[in-house]
Amino acid sequence: MRKNDRSEKALRTVSIEPGFSLHAEGSCLITVGNTKVICTASVDEKVPPFLRNTGKGWVTAEYGMLPRSTGSRMDREAARGGQSGRTHEIQRLIGRSLRAVIDLTALGERQIKVDCDVIQADGGTRTAAITGGFVALYFACKHLVDQKLIKTLPIKDHVAAISAGVVKGQSVLDLDYDEDSTAETDANFVMTGKGGIVEIQSTAEGEPFQLEQFQSMFDLAKSGINDLIKLQMKVMYPELS
Amino acid sequence: MRKNDRSEKALRTVSIEPGFSLHAEGSCLITVGNTKVICTASVDEKVPPFLRNTGKGWVTAEYGMLPRSTGSRMDREAARGGQSGRTHEIQRLIGRSLRAVIDLTALGERQIKVDCDVIQADGGTRTAAITGGFVALYFACKHLVDQKLIKTLPIKDHVAAISAGVVKGQSVLDLDYDEDSTAETDANFVMTGKGGIVEIQSTAEGEPFQLEQFQSMFDLAKSGINDLIKLQMKVMYPELS
Amino acid sequence: MRKNDRSEKALRTVSIEPGFSLHAEGSCLITVGNTKVICTASVDEKVPPFLRNTGKGWVTAEYGMLPRSTGSRMDREAARGGQSGRTHEIQRLIGRSLRAVIDLTALGERQIKVDCDVIQADGGTRTAAITGGFVALYFACKHLVDQKLIKTLPIKDHVAAISAGVVKGQSVLDLDYDEDSTAETDANFVMTGKGGIVEIQSTAEGEPFQLEQFQSMFDLAKSGINDLIKLQMKVMYPELS
Amino acid sequence: MRKNDRSEKALRTVSIEPGFSLHAEGSCLITVGNTKVICTASVDEKVPPFLRNTGKGWVTAEYGMLPRSTGSRMDREAARGGQSGRTHEIQRLIGRSLRAVIDLTALGERQIKVDCDVIQADGGTRTAAITGGFVALYFACKHLVDQKLIKTLPIKDHVAAISAGVVKGQSVLDLDYDEDSTAETDANFVMTGKGGIVEIQSTAEGEPFQLEQFQSMFDLAKSGINDLIKLQMKVMYPELS
Amino acid sequence: MRKNDRSEKALRTVSIEPGFSLHAEGSCLITVGNTKVICTASVDEKVPPFLRNTGKGWVTAEYGMLPRSTGSRMDREAARGGQSGRTHEIQRLIGRSLRAVIDLTALGERQIKVDCDVIQADGGTRTAAITGGFVALYFACKHLVDQKLIKTLPIKDHVAAISAGVVKGQSVLDLDYDEDSTAETDANFVMTGKGGIVEIQSTAEGEPFQLEQFQSMFDLAKSGINDLIKLQMKVMYPELS
Amino acid sequence: MRKNDRSEKALRTVSIEPGFSLHAEGSCLITVGNTKVICTASVDEKVPPFLRNTGKGWVTAEYGMLPRSTGSRMDREAARGGQSGRTHEIQRLIGRSLRAVIDLTALGERQIKVDCDVIQADGGTRTAAITGGFVALYFACKHLVDQKLIKTLPIKDHVAAISAGVVKGQSVLDLDYDEDSTAETDANFVMTGKGGIVEIQSTAEGEPFQLEQFQSMFDLAKSGINDLIKLQMKVMYPELS
Repeated sequence: MRKNDRSEKALRTVSIEPGFSLHAEGSCLITVGNTKVICTASVDEKVPPFLRNTGKGWVTAEYGMLPRSTGSRMDREAARGGQSGRTHEIQRLIGRSLRAVIDLTALGERQIKVDCDVIQADGGTRTAAITGGFVALYFACKHLVDQKLIKTLPIKDHVAAISAGVVKGQSVLDLDYDEDSTAETDANFVMTGKGGIVEIQSTAEGEPFQLEQFQSMFDLAKSGINDLIKLQMKVMYPELS
Repeated sequence: MRKNDRSEKALRTVSIEPGFSLHAEGSCLITVGNTKVICTASVDEKVPPFLRNTGKGWVTAEYGMLPRSTGSRMDREAARGGQSGRTHEIQRLIGRSLRAVIDLTALGERQIKVDCDVIQADGGTRTAAITGGFVALYFACKHLVDQKLIKTLPIKDHVAAISAGVVKGQSVLDLDYDEDSTAETDANFVMTGKGGIVEIQSTAEGEPFQLEQFQSMFDLAKSGINDLIKLQMKVMYPELS
Repeated sequence: MRKNDRSEKALRTVSIEPGFSLHAEGSCLITVGNTKVICTASVDEKVPPFLRNTGKGWVTAEYGMLPRSTGSRMDREAARGGQSGRTHEIQRLIGRSLRAVIDLTALGERQIKVDCDVIQADGGTRTAAITGGFVALYFACKHLVDQKLIKTLPIKDHVAAISAGVVKGQSVLDLDYDEDSTAETDANFVMTGKGGIVEIQSTAEGEPFQLEQFQSMFDLAKSGINDLIKLQMKVMYPELS
Repeated sequence: MRKNDRSEKALRTVSIEPGFSLHAEGSCLITVGNTKVICTASVDEKVPPFLRNTGKGWVTAEYGMLPRSTGSRMDREAARGGQSGRTHEIQRLIGRSLRAVIDLTALGERQIKVDCDVIQADGGTRTAAITGGFVALYFACKHLVDQKLIKTLPIKDHVAAISAGVVKGQSVLDLDYDEDSTAETDANFVMTGKGGIVEIQSTAEGEPFQLEQFQSMFDLAKSGINDLIKLQMKVMYPELS
Repeated sequence: MRKNDRSEKALRTVSIEPGFSLHAEGSCLITVGNTKVICTASVDEKVPPFLRNTGKGWVTAEYGMLPRSTGSRMDREAARGGQSGRTHEIQRLIGRSLRAVIDLTALGERQIKVDCDVIQADGGTRTAAITGGFVALYFACKHLVDQKLIKTLPIKDHVAAISAGVVKGQSVLDLDYDEDSTAETDANFVMTGKGGIVEIQSTAEGEPFQLEQFQSMFDLAKSGINDLIKLQMKVMYPELS
Repeated sequence: MRKNDRSEKALRTVSIEPGFSLHAEGSCLITVGNTKVICTASVDEKVPPFLRNTGKGWVTAEYGMLPRSTGSRMDREAARGGQSGRTHEIQRLIGRSLRAVIDLTALGERQIKVDCDVIQADGGTRTAAITGGFVALYFACKHLVDQKLIKTLPIKDHVAAISAGVVKGQSVLDLDYDEDSTAETDANFVMTGKGGIVEIQSTAEGEPFQLEQFQSMFDLAKSGINDLIKLQMKVMYPELS
C-alpha cells in the first residue's frame, strides 16, 4: 500500500495559496503532499534581444531549490558558481509548458519571468512548479489587464502537470520521493484544460518499458491533471464557486 | 509617524515558527513585519580542512534571497554565476555572530551549516537571519543531544540582532525598507543574552554622525534585542511558559 | 514532398564508419543525411566517487558541437565559460540511454566516457549521438574483453534513437533541420533491440497534440529504430553478413 | 610591552609618498609599520549605468593583495577565478568611506576608481587603504581642477581610518598582524577631519565585549585619526608647512 | 630512423580537402600524418568594438581539441569552465599569423572567424591549423568576392607553418607526437609565400640550444613551408594545374 | 633618436633591489627604465600531482599587473573572473625560462612559486620578470641551503631576458612602450650565462621580416643579456665585488 492509504490513482493533498508574495505581480504557494513551491510571476517591460521591436512578448521560467529543501543538504548553486544541468533542464521544461498556453502577441512586447523556488521537496517539484507557475502567471496577466496595459487576458487555456510511474509493476500517479527512488519507470506529463498534450517525458529507470505501461501512466496522468485544473480554477475564479 | 503608528522604540511584529522544515535537523521561519526568512540548520559530520583531527567543530552560514523577495525582481545569483559582495558580507556576519555563542569544542568535530533564505524582504533581513538562525542552530544542537551524539548543548548564550538608524534626525529601532532607504545613519547590532556585544556595524549614509547618535541607537538596539531574546526563549523552551 | 523524394516513413541515408579514431578504445563516425557525429568511447579505470569500492562501473556521455557545425556560427562553449542548458540536457539523455543496455556490474569498477561531437548538424544530432555512441561503446567493451580485463561483453541489448514529428499535419520520421524548425510537434524515441522503450520525449512546438498523433509518431519511430539497429549489427558483427 | 616599545596609544610609523605612480591621475604609497599599500586614483569619464545623464559622479574602490604580501603565500584571486568575500567586503568599505567626503555633484558625471593594492601586509591593510586612498583621490581631483574639467575641488572633508582592539584585556591602537591574531576584540573606525563618524565596525573575536571597551577603543581611534589627518595635510598641502 | 623511413627533411603526408563543411563560407580538412584539423572560416558582419566605424575588418581564430583527439582523453574545456592557457596561446598565434597576410582595409568592416578544431592529434596541430586555416580563410574571402560584397581578394600573400626540432642531436622537420615528446629543442615557424618570416617560436625543452641549431631548424622549416604553400596553391587554384 | 639619447644598443637604466619583501623566501624589485616588477619566490613543500613521490621538484611562475600600472587603467583580472590569454602566455614563458636553469632533482620534492607583479609598466615587463624572477628564485634556493633543507644550490646557470625589435627600419634593444607600439618586428630572447638560448619569440607586427633582421636583433639581445647577468651577479654575490 502507498503512504496514507493512497490509491494508485490518487493525487496527494494539493493546495494552492494565491497572493503568497507581497511584491510579485502574480504569485502562489503550491503544496503537493510535502512538496512546497513558491511561484512568483514578475513583469519585465523588456524582452530578450530576439524579440525587440516585434510587438511579441515572452514567458520564461527559473527554478531553484533551497539548500535544505531536500533530505540531505545540497550545495547552493550560487555558491558552486552556476546552475546544474538538472536545473537548466527543468526551467526549460517549465518555460515551454507555460508558453504553450500563452498568446505571446496578445501579451505585448514585455516579458513575464516565473520563478519557482522549492522550499520543501518530496518528489514532483517540477510538475508542481508548472501547475503553480501557471497560477502565478495568470495573476500577473490579470494585473496587466487591471492596470489597463493590455485589454484581454493573453491566456489560451489552462496548463498543469503531474508525474506517473511504474512502481513494483504497478502504474501509479503522483510519486513521492520514496516512490520515485524505486520506480522502474518515471514519466512527467504536461496537458492543457482542453486535454491537449504539451509535453511527455518518460524514462526507464531500470528495465525498458512497453507501450501498454506508457498508456496506463498516460491515463492516470490525464485524470490527475483534470483534478489539478479544477483546483486552479477554484483559486483563479473564486467568483465562480 | 512611522507606519502602523509604531513608536521609535518599537520592534515590528515578530514571530518565530520552529520546525518549519520537514528535513532539517533544526529550522524556523522568522517573520519581522513583512520580512520573512527561512532558517535551517544542517548537521554535516565533516569539518573544513583547517579543523580536521582537532576535535573541534564549526558553524557556518549561507544567505540567499529569492529573486522576487524584493520590490523589483533581482537576478538569481546562481544564474549570474556567483554570489555578490553583499551576500558574502552578510553570510560572514551571520557565521561570526552564531559562532560567538557556540562552544566549538563541545560541538565535536562536525559542522553545522545554517542557511538563511529570504522569501520576502522589507528591511532587516540580515538581523532577522541572525535571530532566526540562532533558533535553528539551537534545535540542530538539541537534535545532536537527543541522538546522543553529544552530551550537552554546546551553546553558551543566546544571540540576536536588530537594526537601528537615524531617520529625519530621530533615532529609531528596526527600520523597514522605506526607512532604511532614507536613513541618514544605519546600524546593525548583534548582542548576547547576557548583554555582551558581538558585533557593531554603523554606517553614515549621508552626513557623518556623532557619538551621541551612535549611543542612542545602541540603547534602542539593546532594548530591542532583549525583546527578541525573550521571544527566542518562548520558542526554544516552551516548557518554561 | 520531403527533400530527395523521401517518404514520411523513410530514414535519411545513414552510415556508420567504425574505428574512426586512431586513439579511442571504441569509435565511429555516424552520418544521418547531412548530420555527422564523431563518437568515441574512452575507458577510464577510475569511477565517480559514489561508485568507489562497489565493484560497479559507469557509463557517461558528453556532447559538443563544433562552432560552425551549424548554419550560422555558434559561440564556442569553452570560450563562453560553460556548457549550455541544452548541452547538459542532451548529454544526460545520451548517458541514460546507453546505461539502459549496459550491465554495470559486468563492466567492473571502471568508467566509459562516450564523447559525441557534432561536426556537421542538420537535425537529429542527439538521436544520431545515441545510435552512434552505442557502437563506440560496444567497441570499447570489446576492447576490454580482447584485453582480458573482463570476460564477457557487459551489453544486454542494442539501443538506438530517432526523431519523429508532425509537420504540416502529417507524422514523419527523422526530421532534418528545416522540418524540425517548422514541426508542430517534435518527439525523440530511444528503444532497444527487443523493442523496449528507454525514453520518450515529446513536445508541442505550437498547438498541443493528441494521443493519436503521439501513437503514429511512435509507430514510425519503432520501425526506424529497427532499421538503425540492423545497421548497427552489420557494423558490429561483420562476420555475420 | 608592544613591539618597539610602542605605547597602547601610539600609531606605528606612518609615511605617505605622493605621486608614486607615473601613470595615475592621483597616487601614493602609504606605509604603516610594515604594511605597504599602493593607492592609485584613475579618472574614468564614464559613470555606472544608474548615474547616466544625472550629472552626478561616482567614486568606487578596488582592493587586492599581492600573493606574497602575506606571511604564507595566498593564491592569486585572478587564478582562483574571482574575488573572495573578504575582498568584496573591504572594497565596499573603502568606497563608502571615500564617498562620504566627496560632493558627487561637484565631481560631475565621471567616475574615479581608487585601487588599493597591498604589496606588504602586517595588519591594518583596509584602514591604510582608506587613509592612503583619500590622498590619491585628492590628487586625482586636483588634476581635474588643474585640467579645468571642474572648477573647485569636490572634497568636503578629510577622511582617514585606523584599527583599535582589545589585546590581553587592554585597549590598544593600530594593531599589527600578531596583535590582530590574538585580539579579543577588533574594531575599525573611519572618521572625518571634523570628527564625524563615517563607519564603525567592531567584532568580538572571542568573548563578547562591553560598551566601556568599545568607548575606550573609540577614544584611541579618534586620537589616531587626528594624527593621520595631520599627516595627510602635510602631503596634500606642502605649501602650508 | 624516423617512422615510415622518413628523412629528417621530409614532411609527413599532407592533404588538404577544401569545402569540407556544408555550412561555412570557407573550410577545409587538413591532414598531416595522423594529425587532422577541421578549419572553417565564418563571416560575421560585425567587428569587435575597437574597430567600429573604422571601415577596417578583422580576422580572429579559435582552436579546440576533441576530448579524445589525443592518446589519453582530455577533459572538455567547456566542461572545465574555460579555455586553458595553452589554448589561448595557440589561438592568439593563429590569429596573428593569418592577419599578417590579410589587407584588413580591403576586407571591409567585417570579421572572419577561423575555427580550427583538432579531431585527431599527433603533433603539429597548431602549425596544421595555420596552414589549413589560411585555406579556409581564402575560400571565405572568395565567397565575399563572389557575393560582390568586396571587389578584390583582401589577401596579400600565402601563409603556412611547420615545426622543426632537435631530436637526438639531429635537426628534423615536422615532428610527430613521439618526436615532440623527446625533442631537445622545439620550434614553430610561420612564413609567407614570398619567404618573409611572420613568427618564430623556439624553446629549449632540456638543455639550452645554440644559434647554429636554430639556423638548421630554420632552413628545414623554410623548405617545408615552400612545399606546404605549393599544396595550398593546388587546392586554392585548381584551374592552374 | 631614442628617448634620453639612448643608443640602439643600450639597455635602459636597470636596477635590482634584493630582499624587497619582508615575507618571501626570495625577492627583489627590478626596475628597467620606468618598468617596475616585484618578484617574490615562495617555497611550497607540496608539488603538483604529476610529481608526487618522484623526489623531483618544480618551479612555476605567476604574473600580474596592477590595474593602474598602465597608461590607462585595465580591469582587474580577479574582478573579471579569470586571467587573460596574454597573462597565461607570459606566466608559461617565465616558468619555462626559470626551469631551464634549475636542477629539479637537486631541488627535492618541493615547489617554488615565483610571482612577478608589475607595479608600473613601460614595455618589457615579461623580460624584466624573467631577469628579476631568477634573482628571487636564487635567494629562495639560498634560503633552502641556509635552512639545511638541501645541500647545494640547485642552480645550473644564470638566465635573463630582453626584448629587441625593428623600429623605423632599425634594430634596437630593450623597447619601451612607445617603441613597442610602433615596432615593425618585436622579439623576446631568453638566454643563459653560458650563452645558450632558452627561448626565442619573434613576431612581425606589420610586414614579415627577414632572417638578417632577426640576426641583428639576436646580436643586440645577446649583448644586453650579458649586461643583465653581470648585474644579477653583483646583487647575488655581493661578496665578489
